[in-house]
Amino acid sequence: MQKAWKTDPADSLKVGPGFTLADVDPASTPGFKGDKQAGESVLAAGAVELTALQQRLYARGVEGDERRVLLVLQGMDTSGKDGTVRHVVGMTHPEGVALKSFKAPTAWERRHDFLWRVARQVPAPGMLGVFNRSHYEDVLIQRVHQMAPAAEIERRYGAINEFEAGLADRGITVLKVMLHISPEEQKARLTERLDNPEKYWKYNPADVTERGFWNEYQQAYQIALERTSTEAAPWFVVPADRKWFARIAVQRLLVGALQGLHLTWPLPSFDVAAEQKRLRKS
Amino acid sequence: MQKAWKTDPADSLKVGPGFTLADVDPASTPGFKGDKQAGESVLAAGAVELTALQQRLYARGVEGDERRVLLVLQGMDTSGKDGTVRHVVGMTHPEGVALKSFKAPTAWERRHDFLWRVARQVPAPGMLGVFNRSHYEDVLIQRVHQMAPAAEIERRYGAINEFEAGLADRGITVLKVMLHISPEEQKARLTERLDNPEKYWKYNPADVTERGFWNEYQQAYQIALERTSTEAAPWFVVPADRKWFARIAVQRLLVGALQGLHLTWPLPSFDVAAEQKRLRKS
Repeated sequence: MQKAWKTDPADSLKVGPGFTLADVDPASTPGFKGDKQAGESVLAAGAVELTALQQRLYARGVEGDERRVLLVLQGMDTSGKDGTVRHVVGMTHPEGVALKSFKAPTAWERRHDFLWRVARQVPAPGMLGVFNRSHYEDVLIQRVHQMAPAAEIERRYGAINEFEAGLADRGITVLKVMLHISPEEQKARLTERLDNPEKYWKYNPADVTERGFWNEYQQAYQIALERTSTEAAPWFVVPADRKWFARIAVQRLLVGALQGLHLTWPLPSFDVAAEQKRLRKS
Repeated sequence: MQKAWKTDPADSLKVGPGFTLADVDPASTPGFKGDKQAGESVLAAGAVELTALQQRLYARGVEGDERRVLLVLQGMDTSGKDGTVRHVVGMTHPEGVALKSFKAPTAWERRHDFLWRVARQVPAPGMLGVFNRSHYEDVLIQRVHQMAPAAEIERRYGAINEFEAGLADRGITVLKVMLHISPEEQKARLTERLDNPEKYWKYNPADVTERGFWNEYQQAYQIALERTSTEAAPWFVVPADRKWFARIAVQRLLVGALQGLHLTWPLPSFDVAAEQKRLRKS
């Protein structure tokens, strides 16, 4: 692990028993002993590391290894999900990335169980998959606005755990990240969008309406984190008021997950010397 | 346009009447007055330019603009398609990129017309789409190995032109690029794969077999280029023995295509002052 990390985010940010979201300071930088500038050089170095690992994962996928990694990104509006996609995952090889952004479900999707559309987007072997929002919206916004009956919302936590355990059984490393910002930071980010004509398109009046439900969302997150942070698919809460910290933390989580797979380059499926000879003659 | 370009690749690399593939030197760097080092700084500067344009395209897509750009990448094995995806398109925002790599068609795909699987992958509004290989395989490898009756191959050129004209009608800018390498350069690149255990997975014995059909492939390309380089969807032949040149040329073609759309940031769909007030109070 890079020296600037005192403790691995995989330990310090993991949601375990007794976890309380309200105790996490969104402006903190747990385990990292450096400032923004240090963070930027760590991000650059980490990109090289992450890409090298992703290339092995992809190469093994080509050769039939079923394993893959799925990063689930959640967080309040403006928490930096898109930026994380760009500055962490976007630095790797696009051929090996499967990015899926989940919007409000369509009429067709609503005719199915809430996991239906998600199950169809599970990354293929060898891929680094990213869900930008996910099936967790079905226990977050849907809970806050009571968009489904209470008993159905209740049922979903168990269904999610079962679904994700099934993914782990199939060789999918599931990494769930909540980007955790403060309401003040969100206000600053929304204000920026309204002050800059190049950012108007990122602004949605509904975002301000949703701000009115801040506490309800935090509560819904607390419940989801408690009930769905499992051994098979743990949650990590990443303080995200400082974008640079959130990015290096997610990058480090991904690097750690890939290192944990102990990926070696695939062995040749052909006779190397014979092929060298064939090639020379061709 | 950046100063290092004497002539725009959109002009110098375009396939027009009387084009002869055999006359293009794969090691040349038409229109560019600089070396590899100059090319690298042009690539870095161009990435910023391309990303800025792509962001506008994406923003307009969110607001309902139907336009999008589709880059079709073709070329012999090892011609640098993956590298171009990574070093040109991969430098932009992943949220706005729709990458599709076409492999040999599955049994299910083969039960449909050759354009069926391609039509389903046309990028959504606002996206920068990339086809890594494409429906052109159906008039390239399929022609070389007579995998379909001659009359069917013959029919496909017209079907492709009709299909692509339809894309253009829907606001899709289609840019077709052939990465053109020499057989000597391919041999060097394949040799590298066999000399490096980290690259074994990229090597396929079939690649050497296909090398035996080099002239047939060049002829199939010549015919495809002649018959399907249209006003609506022109072909560009990019000399690709020098990877750095191929990358800056494709980047410049994309930048030019996006500039041609004259994209402005979308106007706000809300009352900015009223929203600023709402936000302040929230």
